[in-house]
Amino acid sequence: MVKYQEVAKKIKQMIYQKQLSKGTQLDNIDGLINQYQVSRSTIVKALNCLERQGVIYQVQGSGIFVRERKKRGYLNFLQSHGFTVDLEDVYGSSTVFNVDIIKPSAKVKENLQCDDNEEVYFVKRLRYVEDKLYGLEQSYYRKKLICYLNKEIVENSIFSYIQENYNINIGFSDKYFQVIKLDAETANCLELQIDDPALSVEETFYTSSGEPFDFSTITYHYENAKFCIQNHSK
Amino acid sequence: MVKYQEVAKKIKQMIYQKQLSKGTQLDNIDGLINQYQVSRSTIVKALNCLERQGVIYQVQGSGIFVRERKKRGYLNFLQSHGFTVDLEDVYGSSTVFNVDIIKPSAKVKENLQCDDNEEVYFVKRLRYVEDKLYGLEQSYYRKKLICYLNKEIVENSIFSYIQENYNINIGFSDKYFQVIKLDAETANCLELQIDDPALSVEETFYTSSGEPFDFSTITYHYENAKFCIQNHSK
Repeated sequence: MVKYQEVAKKIKQMIYQKQLSKGTQLDNIDGLINQYQVSRSTIVKALNCLERQGVIYQVQGSGIFVRERKKRGYLNFLQSHGFTVDLEDVYGSSTVFNVDIIKPSAKVKENLQCDDNEEVYFVKRLRYVEDKLYGLEQSYYRKKLICYLNKEIVENSIFSYIQENYNINIGFSDKYFQVIKLDAETANCLELQIDDPALSVEETFYTSSGEPFDFSTITYHYENAKFCIQNHSK
Repeated sequence: MVKYQEVAKKIKQMIYQKQLSKGTQLDNIDGLINQYQVSRSTIVKALNCLERQGVIYQVQGSGIFVRERKKRGYLNFLQSHGFTVDLEDVYGSSTVFNVDIIKPSAKVKENLQCDDNEEVYFVKRLRYVEDKLYGLEQSYYRKKLICYLNKEIVENSIFSYIQENYNINIGFSDKYFQVIKLDAETANCLELQIDDPALSVEETFYTSSGEPFDFSTITYHYENAKFCIQNHSK
């Protein structure tokens, strides 16, 4: 974690620990420089980072203010698979069906830009948040980049494992989604009825150098999965 | 529009006009400074802006590269109501049911932080993208901030009107959403069946100084509305 991210995390922790309510004005930039003993540019970067995360807003000529905290029980949709969930108010777990090495289908191959003979890890798991079943995830990881996965690893955070063991930095993702009616197989996995509604999300994740390494589809349980995005126009 | 946003827009236009494919390397920062005749800090801000928008990615020590363009027919979910949709590949229109001045319900009052006797504009309209019905929108605007609305105005972009006429800058929003089964009334509006699936989105929009001015609910047509988010971990 680079310096400004550390400072951003500290400021966020302070806001949540002190339970500062929305509209509360923070110290100005000079005050924050003094408090965290870092350079002006680090504070400015940290504040921009917190603004993008929806934690604060900055009013020119007026100050830095706290935004309303996301309501409990809603998943941060921009972090729901992959991007680090720090200071989240929920915990997640998984039931793993399989971790197999396979030849990718044409669709997976295209999304991961695989070479002709490349193999991928296929991981299928049910995801839970606070013991509530919230989705069925099917993910494909390029074996070329992630050499080894097993059941124990994928029961926990795959992304933490990848970042720690393969020195892969997660850069960006393309997320496509729509509402569908469940087919029999997925309905069965989610303990729902055929034709029940669901949110179906397909996402390709890229390393910070622009290489795709994970293609995932998640079908979310319509009663258990609720989402939030704290957006900023900047 | 401030300088770096103008430059960002120009770079984006150049990428789309030249139809640069994903992975194409752009000129380096010095080259861009020379080309657009602006300061280094303006170029850096413009590039960070384009990175957040999912248009480019920057690899430290390596260069600036073009990301894959969003597939046609998917709405940018972060811009689907409100935030400016520039250079979009789709056009939208509306059928307006009503533009009324009402006393807000408890829920609307809470989301808009209304005073006790405050009134709001209630706008109900069907939204179309390229002549396909994609959602039913019910929006509430604080009359205190947006003094006047009529049918003609709300047939077009309310947000453009607000920004131009009331000097309101859109700052940020809290967006909550989940998948639901349609009730009879909404199903009828959307020309769907009762219990058909839908994405239900509630969003509160704030001015750049942190004042809520619009609370909207949109119920999206599950067959016509498909979404994309081009996310970045920074």
